[in-house]
Amino acid sequence: MSHISDSELSEFSMQLFSAMGASYDDAKIATDVLVSADLRGIDSHGVSRLIGYVNLWESGRINMSPDIKIIRENKSTFTIDGDSGLGLVVAPKAMDIAIERAKVYGSGWGAIQNSNHFGIAGYHAMKALSHDMIGMAMTNATPFIPPTRSKQAMLGTNPISYVFPTKNERPLIIDLATSSVARGKIEIARREGREIPKGWMIDKDGRTSQNVDELKDGGMLTPLGSLEELGSHKGYALGSLVDIMSGVLSGANFGKWVPPFVSYLPLLPNLPGKGLGHFVGAMEVDGFRSVDEFKISMDLWINSFKNAERVDEKNPVYVPGEIEFNTEEKRLKTGIPLNDKVLEDLHKLGKKFSIKI
Amino acid sequence: MSHISDSELSEFSMQLFSAMGASYDDAKIATDVLVSADLRGIDSHGVSRLIGYVNLWESGRINMSPDIKIIRENKSTFTIDGDSGLGLVVAPKAMDIAIERAKVYGSGWGAIQNSNHFGIAGYHAMKALSHDMIGMAMTNATPFIPPTRSKQAMLGTNPISYVFPTKNERPLIIDLATSSVARGKIEIARREGREIPKGWMIDKDGRTSQNVDELKDGGMLTPLGSLEELGSHKGYALGSLVDIMSGVLSGANFGKWVPPFVSYLPLLPNLPGKGLGHFVGAMEVDGFRSVDEFKISMDLWINSFKNAERVDEKNPVYVPGEIEFNTEEKRLKTGIPLNDKVLEDLHKLGKKFSIKI
Repeated sequence: MSHISDSELSEFSMQLFSAMGASYDDAKIATDVLVSADLRGIDSHGVSRLIGYVNLWESGRINMSPDIKIIRENKSTFTIDGDSGLGLVVAPKAMDIAIERAKVYGSGWGAIQNSNHFGIAGYHAMKALSHDMIGMAMTNATPFIPPTRSKQAMLGTNPISYVFPTKNERPLIIDLATSSVARGKIEIARREGREIPKGWMIDKDGRTSQNVDELKDGGMLTPLGSLEELGSHKGYALGSLVDIMSGVLSGANFGKWVPPFVSYLPLLPNLPGKGLGHFVGAMEVDGFRSVDEFKISMDLWINSFKNAERVDEKNPVYVPGEIEFNTEEKRLKTGIPLNDKVLEDLHKLGKKFSIKI
Repeated sequence: MSHISDSELSEFSMQLFSAMGASYDDAKIATDVLVSADLRGIDSHGVSRLIGYVNLWESGRINMSPDIKIIRENKSTFTIDGDSGLGLVVAPKAMDIAIERAKVYGSGWGAIQNSNHFGIAGYHAMKALSHDMIGMAMTNATPFIPPTRSKQAMLGTNPISYVFPTKNERPLIIDLATSSVARGKIEIARREGREIPKGWMIDKDGRTSQNVDELKDGGMLTPLGSLEELGSHKGYALGSLVDIMSGVLSGANFGKWVPPFVSYLPLLPNLPGKGLGHFVGAMEVDGFRSVDEFKISMDLWINSFKNAERVDEKNPVYVPGEIEFNTEEKRLKTGIPLNDKVLEDLHKLGKKFSIKI
C-alpha cells in the first residue's frame, strides 16, 4: 500500500489519456471523474480502472476523439450519441446539456447511447449542485446479476445517484449500486480469506453461496435485497428501471446484451442497440420551492437524521454521502492509498506510454 | 373470506366517499385508485383502508372538498397544494397536470404538499401509459423504519413507481416500497403463527427480531436490504430520496414529522411543512426515441427477462408488474377476496352511513 497525492495521480491520468489521443479538455474531464472517485473512497471506480480503459481502447471499443451529439430532442428531453467515447467524458457533457435545458424549461433529461463505463454516477449528478439544482444520473453496466429465480446474469450493478443542494450542511449525495454488495467486496474477502455473509453471492446454478472461490467460476452478485424472502425482487426491479432508462430509452444495449467492461469478453451477437447507456437529469429547485427555503429544510432533514436515536451510542447514524465526504477530506491531506496490484498496473501503463509516476 | 365483484365494491366506495362529502368526480377517482389496488392484489392499499380514511376525516385531518391548486411553477415543473385532500384524489390530478406539461415541454414534474395517503403509487404512474409516456410516482408515509444504526422510526415505506409503455406485451410496472417487506406480511405471519425471516423486523431497541408480537410493542420495519451487512444503507438511501423529493421539495412534512395514517396518533409539534408529500412525473418517449422503436425494444426486454435461465424449471422468472396483471385478470372474473376483518369494517361503515354492501 502506497499513498499518492490527488494532484500526482491527476497528472499521471492526464498524460495517459492524452497519450491515448484524448483532447486536453477530454483528458481533464475523464481524470477529474476518476480521481474524484479515489478521493471519495470508491476505489473500485478510480485510477484502478485505467488499465481496463486502455485494454478496451486497444481492442477498438473506445473512441478517444468522439463526435458527441444530440440525435433527438424535445425541449426538456434529449438523446445523445456518445460515438463510442469514454463514458467518463460523454456523461459529464450530457449532464451539462441537461443543466442548460433545466435553466430554460425547469428540468432537463438526457438519455445517452453508444457510450462506455462512466465511473461514479455521483460525479455526474453533483454537477447540478452549483446551479441550485437536484441532479441525477444512472447507467447500465456489464451483466453480473440474475433476476430473482434466474441463474442468468441479466443486469449490471446499475447505480442510481440523486444529489440535493443544502445551505450550511454538506450536500446530500445518494449514490448506490442496485446490487446487494459490490463485487470488489467479495474479491477483498477472497484475498483476505474471510467469510462472506449469506446473500452476497450465488453460484453458477443460482444457489446462495458463501464460497468466495466461486466468484471466478460463474458466481454472480445478488440484487439489492439479497434473497427472495428479503425482497430481492425489489432490487431486481430497481436494476431493471436503470437498465430501461439507460438502455432501452436511449437506443443503447440492455440486459444480457450490455457490452462487457473487460476487453477479453466478446460482445453477444445481434445487439439490439449501440454501446452502453446512461440517463442523466437536472431539476431547478426554484421551479418547485424557493431555493432558500428548500436548503434550510434540507439542513433540517440532515440534522434530524444524524441525530436519530442510535442503536449503539458509539456508532453514529450517517446520512447518505457523509462517509464519502469524510474520506475526501482525509485523502486530500494524506493522499490516496493504492494497493500493490493497482500500483503495479499504473507502473506498467507508465512504462508503456513513457509517463513517469 | 368472501368474494365481492369489483363493481359492487366500487359502488360501495363511491357512496361512502359521497356520503363523506366528496364530489361525484372525486369519489369516482378515489374509488378507482382503491379498487385498482384490490384488483391488482395489493390488498393492504384497497378498500381495507376505507375505515382509516373515515377515521382521519372524522378527526378533521382530511378535507373532502379541497381546493387543489398550483402554488409555484416553471414550465416542466410545478408544486401543488393539496389543501388536505385525500391523496387518492390529489395525486391523480397532479399526474394529469404532469402529463399536460410533458405534452408541451417533453416532461412534466409535480411536487405535492398538504396531502394524505395516496393509495398505490403504480396507479398514478400508470396514467402516463395511454399517452405513450413513462410515468413515475412516489410518496412519503408514516414513519415506521429507522435509518441504518438507528432505532428511531424516521422513514415510511416510501414507495417508488416507474411504468413503461410496450407494444404487444403488457406494460412494465415497477412499484415497490423501500422497506424490505410490507408491514401487512408480518401481521399475517402473526395471525397465522408463522415464523418470519431474520431481517424483516427490528424491536424497539433496534435489534433484529423474529418475535412478531413485538410489532405491537415498538417493533419496526427494516429498509430494503434488511441488515447492514446486506446493504440496508441502500434501502435507507432510497427511502431518503423519496422523502426528500416528496416532502422537502414540495414543502410538506418529512422524516419523523410525516403525519401518521391513523387518527389516534397525534401529530408531532413544530411541523416543518404541510401534510404529507408526493412527487409525480411524466416523460414523453418521443422526445428521446421513436415511440415504435422504444415499444419494440421494451417487448424484447420483457421477453428476454421472462426467458432468462431458471434456477428451478418449475419457478418462472417474472418481470416487474406481471404478477399484479395476472391477479387482476383473475379477480375481474372471480371477484375480490375480502377477509373477515375487512368485511366487518365495511359492514360497520355501511351501517354508519346507511349504505348497503
